[in-house]
Amino acid sequence: MQKKPAPQALIFDVFGTCVDWRRSIAQTVTEVLPEVDAFAFADAWRGEYDPAMARIRAGNRGYVALDVLHLENLLRVAEQFGVTLEDAESLNSAWERLMPWPDVLPGLEKMAETALIAPCSNGSIALMARMARHVGLPWHAILGAELAQNYKPHPSVYLASCAALQLDPSEVVMVAAHNGDLHAARGAGLATAFVPRPVEHGPKQTTDLHAEGDWDYLAPDFVALAEML
Amino acid sequence: MQKKPAPQALIFDVFGTCVDWRRSIAQTVTEVLPEVDAFAFADAWRGEYDPAMARIRAGNRGYVALDVLHLENLLRVAEQFGVTLEDAESLNSAWERLMPWPDVLPGLEKMAETALIAPCSNGSIALMARMARHVGLPWHAILGAELAQNYKPHPSVYLASCAALQLDPSEVVMVAAHNGDLHAARGAGLATAFVPRPVEHGPKQTTDLHAEGDWDYLAPDFVALAEML
Repeated sequence: MQKKPAPQALIFDVFGTCVDWRRSIAQTVTEVLPEVDAFAFADAWRGEYDPAMARIRAGNRGYVALDVLHLENLLRVAEQFGVTLEDAESLNSAWERLMPWPDVLPGLEKMAETALIAPCSNGSIALMARMARHVGLPWHAILGAELAQNYKPHPSVYLASCAALQLDPSEVVMVAAHNGDLHAARGAGLATAFVPRPVEHGPKQTTDLHAEGDWDYLAPDFVALAEML
Repeated sequence: MQKKPAPQALIFDVFGTCVDWRRSIAQTVTEVLPEVDAFAFADAWRGEYDPAMARIRAGNRGYVALDVLHLENLLRVAEQFGVTLEDAESLNSAWERLMPWPDVLPGLEKMAETALIAPCSNGSIALMARMARHVGLPWHAILGAELAQNYKPHPSVYLASCAALQLDPSEVVMVAAHNGDLHAARGAGLATAFVPRPVEHGPKQTTDLHAEGDWDYLAPDFVALAEML
């Protein structure tokens, strides 16, 4: 792996790869809705994520920011759980304050010394910028879904992110804890790095425990990936 | 001024307001083209900036990134100065390494504690991201011309920047050393802050020495502006 040319930029999946959305959301749910099972609520909320984006990727709905989808999904899940939300928008903003895994900030700081770093997330610019401010993610730019007006894994999201940096996809590494994200990024011509997050979905996680492709980089965490580059 | 509500975001003009483009460009020109008057060359290069953008604002040319305009302008100016460029693209990249005025980094760090901060520049996302990395500008996102696919002072650039943060223009302050920029931002509904840069164009500068409107904030530098907010 040492012989690859140093990448010009690293772009990152955020939910799960950079931040522990499940424990962060459950923490807020515990505070706001003490009567519900917070992890079950967090999982149900996140469970609505893919179907909501799928309609947009399929062209059955125009692009709307993830914040809007999160809010629609929250209202649906609250109804399923039989709870009344006094301030749904405030609870929805919990996605702006997700805590990074412990290796993320030191790893990103080190990677930023030699390459451009930016999220390539399905989160909106507003959501990613507020998260960056809240938890100190040192991005050089916010890329991803909003630039492409579409959602990963649609190839346009990866390609628009590379184009915004005026780089060829081969000069850019997509970093993710999800094999499907890397599969799509490779299809768009990007290099790929897998960093497993084996408890993203809790202690009983069964998916994305291991690399399911011959990704260009495999690292146990962001600090190790920074040293590999 | 103390009674205004705290702004949710501050967006910034960059060339001149945040960075000393003239001395930075002249420094690089001195190194690459020792035979020319470096400040005259920098001024001539920058002099091509407005006419190049004006064609795009007027709809006579589709949006192209400022990097492309800078390169076209460089070739024209080199011809005027009768010099041959061995590596025009390398010289063009000097715009990615412009040095901030001394108050900018401490001022931005302080403003970032209470608000979102982002450039609202005519520079591309790629240019702004590389500059952020080179000189340590702590932006939370890169906004501006590329999002709107148009150039300031077209109102769409200010409005697209606010929209990307999911904020009403009235919740956003445009910070600039140029009265014209603030006039356009106010026209789009933003709050305004004037920070003079009286030697942006050198010791004989005659324009933008003073506020030419009743801007919402007037500050001698970014640190003072941060304290005012």
